[in-house]
Amino acid sequence: LNPDYIRSFLFESKMMPSIWIVIRIDGCHFHRFSDIHEFNKPNDKQALDLMNLCAVAVLEEFQDIIFSYGVSDEYSFVLKKDSQLYQRRASEIVSVILSFFSSMYVMKWKDVFPKKELKYPPSFDGRAVCYPSAEILRDYLAWRQVDCHINNQYNTCFWSIVKSGKSKSEAQSYLKGTQAREKNELLLKEFGIDYNTLPPMFRQGSSVFRVKTETSIRENGASVRKAQTEIITEYCNIIEQSFWESHPSILD
Amino acid sequence: LNPDYIRSFLFESKMMPSIWIVIRIDGCHFHRFSDIHEFNKPNDKQALDLMNLCAVAVLEEFQDIIFSYGVSDEYSFVLKKDSQLYQRRASEIVSVILSFFSSMYVMKWKDVFPKKELKYPPSFDGRAVCYPSAEILRDYLAWRQVDCHINNQYNTCFWSIVKSGKSKSEAQSYLKGTQAREKNELLLKEFGIDYNTLPPMFRQGSSVFRVKTETSIRENGASVRKAQTEIITEYCNIIEQSFWESHPSILD
Amino acid sequence: LNPDYIRSFLFESKMMPSIWIVIRIDGCHFHRFSDIHEFNKPNDKQALDLMNLCAVAVLEEFQDIIFSYGVSDEYSFVLKKDSQLYQRRASEIVSVILSFFSSMYVMKWKDVFPKKELKYPPSFDGRAVCYPSAEILRDYLAWRQVDCHINNQYNTCFWSIVKSGKSKSEAQSYLKGTQAREKNELLLKEFGIDYNTLPPMFRQGSSVFRVKTETSIRENGASVRKAQTEIITEYCNIIEQSFWESHPSILD
Amino acid sequence: LNPDYIRSFLFESKMMPSIWIVIRIDGCHFHRFSDIHEFNKPNDKQALDLMNLCAVAVLEEFQDIIFSYGVSDEYSFVLKKDSQLYQRRASEIVSVILSFFSSMYVMKWKDVFPKKELKYPPSFDGRAVCYPSAEILRDYLAWRQVDCHINNQYNTCFWSIVKSGKSKSEAQSYLKGTQAREKNELLLKEFGIDYNTLPPMFRQGSSVFRVKTETSIRENGASVRKAQTEIITEYCNIIEQSFWESHPSILD
Ligand SMILES: Nc1nc2c(ncn2[C@H]2C[C@H](O)[C@@H](COP(=O)(O)OP(=O)(O)OP(=O)(O)O)O2)c(=O)[nH]1
Ligand SMILES: Nc1nc2c(ncn2[C@H]2C[C@H](O)[C@@H](COP(=O)(O)OP(=O)(O)OP(=O)(O)O)O2)c(=O)[nH]1
Ligand SMILES: Nc1nc2c(ncn2[C@H]2C[C@H](O)[C@@H](COP(=O)(O)OP(=O)(O)OP(=O)(O)O)O2)c(=O)[nH]1
Ligand SMILES: Nc1nc2c(ncn2[C@H]2C[C@H](O)[C@@H](COP(=O)(O)OP(=O)(O)OP(=O)(O)O)O2)c(=O)[nH]1
Ligand SMILES: O=P(O)(O)OP(=O)(O)OP(=O)(O)O
Ligand SMILES: O=P(O)(O)OP(=O)(O)OP(=O)(O)O
Ligand SMILES: O=P(O)(O)OP(=O)(O)OP(=O)(O)O
Ligand SMILES: O=P(O)(O)OP(=O)(O)OP(=O)(O)O
Ligand SMILES: [Mg+2]
Ligand SMILES: [Mg+2]
Ligand SMILES: [Mg+2]
Ligand SMILES: [Mg+2]
Ligand SMILES: [Mg+2]
Ligand SMILES: [Mg+2]
Ligand SMILES: [Mg+2]
Ligand SMILES: [Mg+2]
Ligand SMILES: [Mg+2]
Ligand SMILES: [Mg+2]
Ligand SMILES: [Mg+2]
Ligand SMILES: [Mg+2]
Repeated sequence: LNPDYIRSFLFESKMMPSIWIVIRIDGCHFHRFSDIHEFNKPNDKQALDLMNLCAVAVLEEFQDIIFSYGVSDEYSFVLKKDSQLYQRRASEIVSVILSFFSSMYVMKWKDVFPKKELKYPPSFDGRAVCYPSAEILRDYLAWRQVDCHINNQYNTCFWSIVKSGKSKSEAQSYLKGTQAREKNELLLKEFGIDYNTLPPMFRQGSSVFRVKTETSIRENGASVRKAQTEIITEYCNIIEQSFWESHPSILD
Repeated sequence: LNPDYIRSFLFESKMMPSIWIVIRIDGCHFHRFSDIHEFNKPNDKQALDLMNLCAVAVLEEFQDIIFSYGVSDEYSFVLKKDSQLYQRRASEIVSVILSFFSSMYVMKWKDVFPKKELKYPPSFDGRAVCYPSAEILRDYLAWRQVDCHINNQYNTCFWSIVKSGKSKSEAQSYLKGTQAREKNELLLKEFGIDYNTLPPMFRQGSSVFRVKTETSIRENGASVRKAQTEIITEYCNIIEQSFWESHPSILD
Repeated sequence: LNPDYIRSFLFESKMMPSIWIVIRIDGCHFHRFSDIHEFNKPNDKQALDLMNLCAVAVLEEFQDIIFSYGVSDEYSFVLKKDSQLYQRRASEIVSVILSFFSSMYVMKWKDVFPKKELKYPPSFDGRAVCYPSAEILRDYLAWRQVDCHINNQYNTCFWSIVKSGKSKSEAQSYLKGTQAREKNELLLKEFGIDYNTLPPMFRQGSSVFRVKTETSIRENGASVRKAQTEIITEYCNIIEQSFWESHPSILD
Repeated sequence: LNPDYIRSFLFESKMMPSIWIVIRIDGCHFHRFSDIHEFNKPNDKQALDLMNLCAVAVLEEFQDIIFSYGVSDEYSFVLKKDSQLYQRRASEIVSVILSFFSSMYVMKWKDVFPKKELKYPPSFDGRAVCYPSAEILRDYLAWRQVDCHINNQYNTCFWSIVKSGKSKSEAQSYLKGTQAREKNELLLKEFGIDYNTLPPMFRQGSSVFRVKTETSIRENGASVRKAQTEIITEYCNIIEQSFWESHPSILD
């Protein structure tokens, strides 16, 4: 028995240095999970809160994560480009973040859903993707937010129609081929819903990230300014240039 | 914004066809986790039971896993060699099994430790390794069981010495360089412990696997034999040839 | 300037231990190369001899290659399963064999084609593929030989028809959908060619491999048997079991 | 026999999009090759000319190569960052460039060394490395040029000492631990060689790249300016900023 020989089968794939690593996790079969746990349709504020709580905990645990974005049953965690976490070994990074997130989801469940029993253990899949420039990384995040918007607009229409008494297939064929503007008009005219007044969390998804803050504290009678890092959750537009300009430290 | 371009950064590493895939998971910083949750030293039967419960659930969930072996804070899951689970994509397979295991660990905690609070979410790292022949796969498993044996023998001595009033560093220097036989003699002479009578779960680790069983049932007055598959947990020697000869169906 | 940092971008992909590595090379745009150098159609004995000469030289240079098979503008080189050549780094192995083959092809050109000028430097692409069992490796080689047979049969018919005065597109539509047997009948009836009497090199491709031989030599008046290894080129059926049974040392 | 199954063992590693790919080739055992072909020591102008001729041919053949740098028995070819050559498959790109270079080297040998016989086929190893930013790519090239300088300075001293009658080991121990300045002083004082007047090709290595030129041609009586791309070979400093500023089109 030669341990070195047995170990030699392990193929450790390290990610290229000096580029951004994104860990994306996505709930497995959350269509079923959401049904069984009777999440509100199309968006369940508590379910999203739970995802966000877990994301905040992930950022607290892993200092190298500079930004994260969540929507529906997925979350993307961005590591700083010179991160040396687990020597940049893909399977280690993905697995540890994912495992922590999963455990946390189960632990926090009862805090968010005090009256709902967790019927079976949720699981998520995970993967690592690298992006070599800040532009492409921002394109990645923009892509997720565009996805959020398109899905949310569609789902809001779909469930409004269904709740009004139509069948699911009627709702589907009604919406087929409609443009963004038509969907907004439908919501306004038929259901009195102004899409842009819906909760930003539903329309924009959730961004969890670090901000540098300064607080004045009293030390030996004098007022001293202290730099701190805080993790905040926002529901904002991350496609626009302005977000990144207001938070220049995120991508350096 | 071109989704295809953004997706093209994803590098999907598929594992070679027709060889065994082993997913090994290992608790992160379980030294600390075991301390904080006051696990018995060197072995905590309940903690190991919890690991085994989760492994059984993993085998129930993932049909392609043919065998698994656990010791301490680690578990190895062996997929059948022609498994097509997630098209053999490494990060998908590792992440889904790991995520399921982690969630299950938290969910089952209170069943196993009804009086102990889970203080913080446990996490595990995961990796996939491939083995091209049944012999090398068996060598891998033997390696893990040898590890189990060596660690357990050492730890049993170590904690016996410590519990007898010596300091940890005294115990360490006392054991330095001792052979297997000397350790067994020490246990017998100093502490009246016959190593071979210690619980097999501690000495051999846990094997969770499927067995084919047959039951006779009555159908329309006649007795009919029915083939079934059962998942069992055993604490047996998997290094010896005889185990694999008694269970030929595991590796085909 | 930090050389270690710059080197860290190099990702060295080592091939799994203990499995067979096949290096397949294939001429780039040999359609054009064959035209410009006026190779006989469909098979040019000299061009194939040149490929074979280079393959023999490759086996002489790289001791770890146990078998090779060539057809048309391609060659497959099989490394023994425990080869440590370049620590099994894929790009190193592929590139060195390929580079040697290419140089040799140009050097030997004038020996094989003393009256033909080499008009431009030929190039080949190369790749490494691993096969985890002797069966699958033999299936790989069988696949190449089946390909040889099918292409050769088709091409022999095609060029016979064209040489008889038909256009290329007439030949093509004539052959469309014909079975193996029909093609052989066509050759026999129309052109008096018994397919099975065509040169084995054209029908079966070329196998270049090592055989162990023994020679008796006189040493100090006594006759001593000496084991030797010889590299031979054969045009034989490598699909059938019998070839591998007659040469058991190739795959162990 | 299932071709799809056999093909499925091929693992095609594509390089990340939108980053620079460098193919570095290096002569195998050129210590021996240079000895046997009696190259001048430490630098053989003709041998380097041959390498450069091949590099020019490579740039003529592969449009996506924007820059290349050669020294001693090695050459680095830089592909533009959005190159789609062979869909960015590493082994294909490396092997084709390398194979072409090797063939060309043998073909051009007699042009450069009309009186020297090529004794055996040279071979080169090849590899692909990716660099995610223009800065790191330039660091890579600077690293190669620094290597060129250090080796050349050392070798110039070494062979001057040896040619003056000392043994190789004497030369070696004499130079051990000497600084750059000391080496230059040694050359000047002992051998009357002003290092900075040595041929730039030896001191700086060779850069082969494309430049855009404009020529005025007469068309229908009028003078028309025509843009052209030319491949040029220079022996210049590529570490300094100024080179890249004078050739902004190379890295965009
Ligand atoms: N009712 C409800 N369902 C949600 C909510 N967030 C996510 N879901 C459900 C709706 C979707 O069916 C599902 C997410 O879509 P996916 O494409 O990830 O599909 P799913 O997880 O079912 O399959 P997968 O295993 O990811 O391929 O989760 C929510 O807030 N409320
Ligand atoms: N008291 C006690 N501790 C245990 C038991 N099983 C495992 N442990 C602890 C002892 C070891 O410190 C640790 C397992 O060793 P590892 O090499 O996996 O180290 P650890 O998990 O601390 O670090 P890692 O993140 O895996 O590098 O778990 C148990 O039954 N009782
Ligand atoms: N006339 C003639 N042509 C041959 C002979 N052996 C190979 N060839 C030519 C015929 C085929 O067009 C070509 C081999 O087919 P391939 O599929 O490798 O295509 P080709 O090399 O043109 O393209 P590629 O760069 O490999 O994708 O080489 C020969 O003995 N005589
Ligand atoms: N005499 C002479 N030798 C040269 C010239 N250019 C390169 N060489 C030789 C000197 C070195 O021994 C060798 C290049 O060093 P390498 O580190 O590449 O070593 P080598 O190719 O021997 O081994 P390798 O297969 O690359 O590990 O080539 C030259 O212009 N003149
Ligand atoms: O699973 P989807 O549909 O959200 O999309 P994806 O995860 O990007 O695709 P896949 O799971 O097929 O990699
Ligand atoms: O973590 P260890 O010490 O149990 O051993 P390993 O996990 O095989 O080693 P590593 O974590 O360094 O890959
Ligand atoms: O190039 P072909 O058609 O002989 O076949 P292949 O080389 O196996 O296919 P590809 O070049 O597309 O990998
Ligand atoms: O071969 P060397 O010494 O020039 O250096 P290298 O090629 O960068 O190193 P290696 O061949 O060991 O990858
Ligand atoms: Mg998915
Ligand atoms: Mg999902
Ligand atoms: Mg989803
Ligand atoms: Mg570990
Ligand atoms: Mg551990
Ligand atoms: Mg462990
Ligand atoms: Mg091809
Ligand atoms: Mg070809
Ligand atoms: Mg071919
Ligand atoms: Mg080298
Ligand atoms: Mg060299
Ligand atoms: Mg070199």
